[in-house]
Amino acid sequence: MTKIDIAALDAEDPLACFRERFYLPEGLIYLDGNSLGPAPKAAFTGFGEVVEKEWAEGLIGSWNTAGWFAAPKTLGDRLGAFLGAAPGQTVVCDTTSINIFKAVHAALGLRPGRRVVVSELDSFPTDLYMLGGTGAEVRLLGRDGDRLEDLIDGNVAAVLLSQVNYRSGALFDMTAINRLAHDAGALIIWDLCHSAGVVPIALDAAGTDFAVGCTYKYLNAGPGAPAFIYVAKRHLEEARQPLSGWWGHARPFAFEAEYEAHPGIEKFLCGTQPIISLRGVQAGLDALDGVSQSALREKSLSLTHLFMDLCEPLCRDYGLVPGTPREDRQRGSQVSFTFEHGYAVIRAMIERGVVGDFREPGLMRFGFAPLYLSHADIKRAVEIMESCLADRVWLDPAYQVRSPVT
Amino acid sequence: MTKIDIAALDAEDPLACFRERFYLPEGLIYLDGNSLGPAPKAAFTGFGEVVEKEWAEGLIGSWNTAGWFAAPKTLGDRLGAFLGAAPGQTVVCDTTSINIFKAVHAALGLRPGRRVVVSELDSFPTDLYMLGGTGAEVRLLGRDGDRLEDLIDGNVAAVLLSQVNYRSGALFDMTAINRLAHDAGALIIWDLCHSAGVVPIALDAAGTDFAVGCTYKYLNAGPGAPAFIYVAKRHLEEARQPLSGWWGHARPFAFEAEYEAHPGIEKFLCGTQPIISLRGVQAGLDALDGVSQSALREKSLSLTHLFMDLCEPLCRDYGLVPGTPREDRQRGSQVSFTFEHGYAVIRAMIERGVVGDFREPGLMRFGFAPLYLSHADIKRAVEIMESCLADRVWLDPAYQVRSPVT
Repeated sequence: MTKIDIAALDAEDPLACFRERFYLPEGLIYLDGNSLGPAPKAAFTGFGEVVEKEWAEGLIGSWNTAGWFAAPKTLGDRLGAFLGAAPGQTVVCDTTSINIFKAVHAALGLRPGRRVVVSELDSFPTDLYMLGGTGAEVRLLGRDGDRLEDLIDGNVAAVLLSQVNYRSGALFDMTAINRLAHDAGALIIWDLCHSAGVVPIALDAAGTDFAVGCTYKYLNAGPGAPAFIYVAKRHLEEARQPLSGWWGHARPFAFEAEYEAHPGIEKFLCGTQPIISLRGVQAGLDALDGVSQSALREKSLSLTHLFMDLCEPLCRDYGLVPGTPREDRQRGSQVSFTFEHGYAVIRAMIERGVVGDFREPGLMRFGFAPLYLSHADIKRAVEIMESCLADRVWLDPAYQVRSPVT
Repeated sequence: MTKIDIAALDAEDPLACFRERFYLPEGLIYLDGNSLGPAPKAAFTGFGEVVEKEWAEGLIGSWNTAGWFAAPKTLGDRLGAFLGAAPGQTVVCDTTSINIFKAVHAALGLRPGRRVVVSELDSFPTDLYMLGGTGAEVRLLGRDGDRLEDLIDGNVAAVLLSQVNYRSGALFDMTAINRLAHDAGALIIWDLCHSAGVVPIALDAAGTDFAVGCTYKYLNAGPGAPAFIYVAKRHLEEARQPLSGWWGHARPFAFEAEYEAHPGIEKFLCGTQPIISLRGVQAGLDALDGVSQSALREKSLSLTHLFMDLCEPLCRDYGLVPGTPREDRQRGSQVSFTFEHGYAVIRAMIERGVVGDFREPGLMRFGFAPLYLSHADIKRAVEIMESCLADRVWLDPAYQVRSPVT
């Protein structure tokens, strides 16, 4: 692929105008939006407003006048719309881990007599850790069987899967797997951490039962910003979850001694939410305003495709092993390689202005956010990766002591 | 009490210099710090720094370089020191509700065979709601018995109490009740939401087992800022809690499929924390730096005492019923009255520049934060309350439609 092709791809990019909505340090190529998205410029004023005006000036009254109390629901509906969910099914709250706990408990409650949850050995570990805490019996794709369909039987209450795998970047077909689960009478819980904001998602249309995810990766809401949970309307009346805090009460301000779950999605709320961090979710959604899902997907595939093409000679020459599906429909917006010197290469690339990340063992991982990356960025990133490989940076003692790359 | 006495009290106030650490709107007397503390001035730069420098410039690297990953522990140790806890027993994370869930589960696990948790009917409701979600058998002071000692027997795993009652402002004797629980082989869980920051607390010295609380009341950390949990060192090895997320893993960055709880207080962490809201906890602790616990307590009692004295004629003339203990050792830093027109009076007082709050049914509630209130403020607040009562503001239709006062 020649330089001219790349310039043409960028010239025709309908999403190029979104780049200016984000702050990125001068000269940096950021391929780590799958770990922490960059700051939308609007966040600077957004946080200033919530701190200086709403908290400092408005004080307690801002719970109502500034919409703080309603924020998990207001933001949930807005995020839900982006994920193909009608209003009243999504709230922004707590963490992905805690929302997984709620969803698994709710699913077990909706399928009495069934105690098995099917998941994937290669899930982001917290999903499995949280499953362990629910007391469910766990079957894992990649350990207990080769095919998902062999694991799902009449004992399975729910299937919990990441739509995009955090290591390989592989993408599951949501509709097909929902059908697989439903055919066996099981429910589906999707972890959208690595897909929300970059893969078109249609929760209602796909017949999804539950979904959870974080907002600080491709939704650019800021470090550790509250997560979200979606529960399909058809389950809301019957669903229960044990984190029955006051924000989930039918009448939270009546201060009744007995808990009565809110009839709506609010029953999936628990305690008071971190309002200032929540403002980041608003900034992140503002930065997505007006984006076309199909343009997002098209550019995402174009970026990952270009990256994989340009990396082919490096794989051949240095022994990097590609870990990401080449076929478009099986790929999220992330590309990874395993390489024994991956840690040193990622560290050196960061020092040369390209931020990717490293996961033990030996995984070099690059995320591609169509809103702020150009094809020229990708070409430059590969050139820098090549320079690190050519320099055999792993021989440099500075890159041999491991400090965590979060 | 004459005007001269009040001026003298303020002139001799060793905490008067702390007032300038807080931003308070011009002319406002804020008696609602027991609901949401005001903004420490340092918060303005603190939030700017975490957003503009650490997130926007530092991006993913700030998890390490800016201490984000360590923040729950770093802030926990610092808050712990203020609450009389040696390092390694406190983390700042999640919400009070969720931390109650963790503590109750841990206590039940440490007392196998015992399924009862004793609490108080008049607890902040979320404590009871969360208890309900744990599956514990619940006995309530105020419903099942008149005296706490009659409720605690060999079936009781834990006693969960608010140190300061959110309605009456009554203060429990932590050491005495710890002894009561321990004598029956039960553990104690203290909810410090309405005492932390205003009542001297010595968790280790009192032999407390677990404590939880929020940081956004008298700790002034901002709306919905993350809560805290303390677990006494002697329980850390054996204690388990079911919200077993990746931040509680012994090796969170090893990405192992099996959960292994961290040996320390970190096992009480679960998912990724809201870093920007966490920065408010730092600002709140900074604003407390150098305060003397005894001076804090002395001024708190002086303020509440003065308020109750000045309100006596109002109670007599208008029928407000005092709900707060007059005896110093039984009182936190809050005074409340029940009054049938309480809602209208609180609303009118707010419009006249004195912020208190209202809780159903009929409870007028005032919090007294020694760091930013003067005795002159208290006198003025009572004058304004008196003007609202004299004006019979409840006859004004504007104050009859209820909107929630959070």
